[in-house]
Amino acid sequence: MKLTILGCYAATPRTITNPTSQVLEIKNRLFLIDCGEGTQVQLRKNKIKFSKINHIFISHLHGDHFFGLIGTISTFALLGRTADLHIYGPKGVKEIITLQLRLSNSWTTYDLFFHELESDKSEVIFEDNRVIVKTIPLKHRVYTNGFLFQEKPAERKLNVDAVQQYGIHTAYYQKIKNGGNVTLDDGTVIENEKLSFDPIAPMSYAFCSDTVYNEAVIPIIENVDVLYHESTFLESEAPLALKTLHSTAKEAATIALKANAKQLILGHYSTRYDGIERFKEEAETIFPNVLLGDDGRSFEF
Amino acid sequence: MKLTILGCYAATPRTITNPTSQVLEIKNRLFLIDCGEGTQVQLRKNKIKFSKINHIFISHLHGDHFFGLIGTISTFALLGRTADLHIYGPKGVKEIITLQLRLSNSWTTYDLFFHELESDKSEVIFEDNRVIVKTIPLKHRVYTNGFLFQEKPAERKLNVDAVQQYGIHTAYYQKIKNGGNVTLDDGTVIENEKLSFDPIAPMSYAFCSDTVYNEAVIPIIENVDVLYHESTFLESEAPLALKTLHSTAKEAATIALKANAKQLILGHYSTRYDGIERFKEEAETIFPNVLLGDDGRSFEF
Repeated sequence: MKLTILGCYAATPRTITNPTSQVLEIKNRLFLIDCGEGTQVQLRKNKIKFSKINHIFISHLHGDHFFGLIGTISTFALLGRTADLHIYGPKGVKEIITLQLRLSNSWTTYDLFFHELESDKSEVIFEDNRVIVKTIPLKHRVYTNGFLFQEKPAERKLNVDAVQQYGIHTAYYQKIKNGGNVTLDDGTVIENEKLSFDPIAPMSYAFCSDTVYNEAVIPIIENVDVLYHESTFLESEAPLALKTLHSTAKEAATIALKANAKQLILGHYSTRYDGIERFKEEAETIFPNVLLGDDGRSFEF
Repeated sequence: MKLTILGCYAATPRTITNPTSQVLEIKNRLFLIDCGEGTQVQLRKNKIKFSKINHIFISHLHGDHFFGLIGTISTFALLGRTADLHIYGPKGVKEIITLQLRLSNSWTTYDLFFHELESDKSEVIFEDNRVIVKTIPLKHRVYTNGFLFQEKPAERKLNVDAVQQYGIHTAYYQKIKNGGNVTLDDGTVIENEKLSFDPIAPMSYAFCSDTVYNEAVIPIIENVDVLYHESTFLESEAPLALKTLHSTAKEAATIALKANAKQLILGHYSTRYDGIERFKEEAETIFPNVLLGDDGRSFEF
């Protein structure tokens, strides 16, 4: 997996910071997560090909998470895109986009599919042969979801020495890769574990923004490899975080710890602070593996 | 007057160019004209105070002219603005903005007034004691207006030597500045021209984007001091200009010539060209006083 942060600052775009948007690459698929104003320019700056984006996930309808969506959709059309584009987001996103396309008399050159979300329970919203995406219901001032991206388990790896030693025909190889046992001509059953190795463990990534501290997400994201969790404020502004339904760096780290995440990435920083190093310091008092998200920063895992 | 071009390129925002938006300052009033995606960041880059903008004019509902409006309105609210904001634009702009405010549950902290335009005739849409603004109906693929900004004539300048020589009391000074004659105690009438000088001639600015070549604008903008006219294409792409209802540099210059404009500023360049110098060269074959608009460029006149 490769995560590229296009923007991870709260509220208003500025000359040096961008509102929320990120690109997650899994097994050669690109998922765009949130789309604040200026996302299409951030995609260009980070040399991410528009044509590789087929799925856009919108967490909630606050401007710093979706005001760049209409521009992105329009630019794809101006560039003559033909491939389908799927938008996953709160109910209302379809009306916002289609109203603007209608009034500008500028329909897309490609088919646009809206998957509007209303449930307050985690649900599977995308699945193909490599990846599954589930919602993570969050608590914020409007209806909000995070998103959990899970790789599907890869095939088991053939133990070439073992299958040759048992004289197993190549016709059985796919069955072995799928985890099956093999029965030899003499009736002996060879357990799969003797014929194959464990595949590389599938990775998972959870995006949680925007939300107040909310332990209800823990069972959904338990054991996640990488957790991006918003930390709009430092603990010194905890009352403000509670009032605005945002989290502090310490709270983000507490969720990471309790969910047994392997890695925490912070983001969605309020622009009131000079620099973001203190977010890492505060989170590390709770949880050891903390990385700072920042515009243009990429993480591979 | 001072004109600051925030963006003047057609179609999609790019890392180095911005869609249409400009700020016109007249007698200490700021008017924002069009508002493509990223306008709020361009305002910051050009150090234009958000609080000085009370009137926003939207020419038409193509994305490169208004996708930044919702973000600008929202940012003003996040910054706690209290002053009224007036939006002038095609019918539909109110629905687009209010739908997004409603679905994001983010109402403005200030009063927002929409002045929706539907007429295909030039009309006065703003007037105060210093400035008058009229629409310039344009021909494009959707309902579009340019805007003509006219300073109102200033007061005449008092001829201090003359009024002292005639022994005129200061109580008459404002009457003289307003153009009135003065009757002395002996009944002699002193003509205003002997007591005052002509004021600086009021300036005018016409914004014409987007439009096909359209001579119907000429009587509206006749004798304008500065004409900004779109030149999406060069004459080599004249058929494409006609098809998409845009203008070439030569056509923009022809309008400037026929309208007896003093100065032409070009803009709304297609991003298909390397550099914009050729637009100036082409326009100058028709009309002598050509300036190239470009992002971040300011003009005082």
